Amino acid sequence: MSDLVVFNIGSLVTNDPDRDGLLGIVEKAAVAIVGEAIAWVGPEENLPDEFSDSRGLDAGGAAVLPGFVDPHTHLVFAGDRSDEFAGRLRGRSYEEILAAGGGILSTVEATRAASEEELFEEAAGRAWRMLSTGTTTVEVKSGYGLDVETEEKMLRVAGRIGEFLPIDVIPTFLGAHVFPVEYRSDRDAYIDLVTGPMLDACAPLATFCDVFCDDAAFTVDEARRILEAARQHGLALRVHADQLGRVGAAALAADLHAASADHLDHVTDHDLEAMRRAGTVAVLLPAVSFSMRLPYPDGRRIWDSGVTVALATDCNPGTAYVESMPFVIALASLNMGLEPEEALWAATAGAAGSLGLADRGRIVPGALGDLVILDAPTYLHIPYRPDGGLVAAVVKRGTIV
Amino acid sequence: MSDLVVFNIGSLVTNDPDRDGLLGIVEKAAVAIVGEAIAWVGPEENLPDEFSDSRGLDAGGAAVLPGFVDPHTHLVFAGDRSDEFAGRLRGRSYEEILAAGGGILSTVEATRAASEEELFEEAAGRAWRMLSTGTTTVEVKSGYGLDVETEEKMLRVAGRIGEFLPIDVIPTFLGAHVFPVEYRSDRDAYIDLVTGPMLDACAPLATFCDVFCDDAAFTVDEARRILEAARQHGLALRVHADQLGRVGAAALAADLHAASADHLDHVTDHDLEAMRRAGTVAVLLPAVSFSMRLPYPDGRRIWDSGVTVALATDCNPGTAYVESMPFVIALASLNMGLEPEEALWAATAGAAGSLGLADRGRIVPGALGDLVILDAPTYLHIPYRPDGGLVAAVVKRGTIV
Repeated sequence: MSDLVVFNIGSLVTNDPDRDGLLGIVEKAAVAIVGEAIAWVGPEENLPDEFSDSRGLDAGGAAVLPGFVDPHTHLVFAGDRSDEFAGRLRGRSYEEILAAGGGILSTVEATRAASEEELFEEAAGRAWRMLSTGTTTVEVKSGYGLDVETEEKMLRVAGRIGEFLPIDVIPTFLGAHVFPVEYRSDRDAYIDLVTGPMLDACAPLATFCDVFCDDAAFTVDEARRILEAARQHGLALRVHADQLGRVGAAALAADLHAASADHLDHVTDHDLEAMRRAGTVAVLLPAVSFSMRLPYPDGRRIWDSGVTVALATDCNPGTAYVESMPFVIALASLNMGLEPEEALWAATAGAAGSLGLADRGRIVPGALGDLVILDAPTYLHIPYRPDGGLVAAVVKRGTIV
Repeated sequence: MSDLVVFNIGSLVTNDPDRDGLLGIVEKAAVAIVGEAIAWVGPEENLPDEFSDSRGLDAGGAAVLPGFVDPHTHLVFAGDRSDEFAGRLRGRSYEEILAAGGGILSTVEATRAASEEELFEEAAGRAWRMLSTGTTTVEVKSGYGLDVETEEKMLRVAGRIGEFLPIDVIPTFLGAHVFPVEYRSDRDAYIDLVTGPMLDACAPLATFCDVFCDDAAFTVDEARRILEAARQHGLALRVHADQLGRVGAAALAADLHAASADHLDHVTDHDLEAMRRAGTVAVLLPAVSFSMRLPYPDGRRIWDSGVTVALATDCNPGTAYVESMPFVIALASLNMGLEPEEALWAATAGAAGSLGLADRGRIVPGALGDLVILDAPTYLHIPYRPDGGLVAAVVKRGTIV
């Protein structure tokens, strides 16, 4: 019998819209899980007798939260760019970094050269660390291959992570991450490749298609062509949007009813209104601002626009080598204008929404049994103690991991 | 036989001034420890035969660093101020926080009320988390008692941490942290208490005496009186200096040849020159700036002044609930103008220097066998991956902990 009752919960964050407040907190609570799904949630004193024989997990009076959902990562990669990072700290320019062999194309080179087994081993390490900080669902993008073979390889690795580790992986095809060197002088030919053989090969391995639509990346017209082709292949859509400049990528995402528009450093109020109407979720990535020492996107304005907000790590070797959603929640609370409860909601319910997943991000009957037990009495300790170490235990689909 | 050889070290940071560069890095290295002390350091291929029977610890090609020394913490306290922290994020003023029962005096109240056993249990948890992030020596201050009984109790707890956990504790008497409520209208009477019965009781339990000399705290004249009395009792000196305003506390520290002046947000070049001449170490605390969303002290200017620089967490329940020295190194590298190697040196050799400890902070023959084995190929990963999880193993006085 795999039933589990988590009891002695001091403060349970449910995100249940039928309960009070944004977080729907229940004090002195218990959660019963049957199989992989939550069967009952409420004050412990009301726990039905039918669960009295279930295996128990004592939360020790601590706070319990929904498992974190990380909806934007580049988890699968090879190579080490810590030298490039240090060079940036010493004031080296992007041109100098490129001349020294750094930048995203160095990751492409290393990822192409790595075997599937090597990629899996490195990515699995990152996924385990994510799990240990409470992430129970992670989106994983391709995009360091930029050729059919390597894009496929990355998505196979992403799939294997979900198969072999107790974490759900949502794979995203990002063939349109940057233009590979060999196509720089013929952009149309690369888009033909992406929308043709690459999409044919990758669509069966992915749930979403994403495009980096920005200054120095894919134009709005190019992005539209790729995203429309992906939709024809049955993929849902995400967009790296308006990070470096306001090119109209968020507006494109809204126009295509994309599931999410991500980054949004330069989003306008008009874009946000279009996103709100289209149901496109804003995925914000404060760890990039932290690691790159750049201004943070205006989380307050974006939240107040009425758009649904999600948080993600953007885990990647260039601009944010961050795996911990609690750290992202701390950054969003301290530096991006979200209140701690908004940041927590965005890292759970909002993030699940950005992936179109209605069965997680909330602790309600019928949802997956994905829980984080903190070593702290309240979720406020996440920004209060920003250096981590707060996760005491993680339950994934009803199993203590 | 307690001998230990750490081998297969990809990159060993020795901080040995007789080797090249600030960090004295040795590639493909080994370290031999006999008993509690380092016996040999060098390229592994040169490891003397006498160590061939020692127990081995395979570093797996990773980076190995001196154990971190955290020279400024308020580790012993009771109570929870996460609500106050969240209130500040929501824009509540300090006056409102005080009116709601927050602020440092709420910690004093909770610490007075806590039993020695309760204080020990909480502080031991913090010390374990520090150890797990690589700290092998920690300074611990009193200062939440402000009466003889509780100041003594705090220092006894600090001593017990060092006795029962594999971490060295350097205890500091900080009776002059703030004025307690009961002495607000008679400052001289409190200073009489601190320099009289409190110092008599606490000096035997402490190595250092510290005073918070700043706006809204102890004046330079008051601080001088207390520090001179402490010196008479055989204590070495530290000063919380010029954090809130430039009151001349750093200059006082230099004048008294204090071991350290800490915070230094408002230090002048003239003060720094006096500190340099006196050998007073600058202890910088970037986690306070991060958690309080305040400007960082100018680490670059302070380092370039020629003063010895140390880094510390300032772990405390009000302004920086941070336990991890790697996180502090990341903040100092990203936001305080230190280069990563300077930040690492300041968290090891510089921090040991600020505590007057010549036997640690360096991996050289004769020093204590205090090592951190990273789960990373280079120390650059500390700022590159700022959310932690990089410490694979810790060796304290020759024992793997």
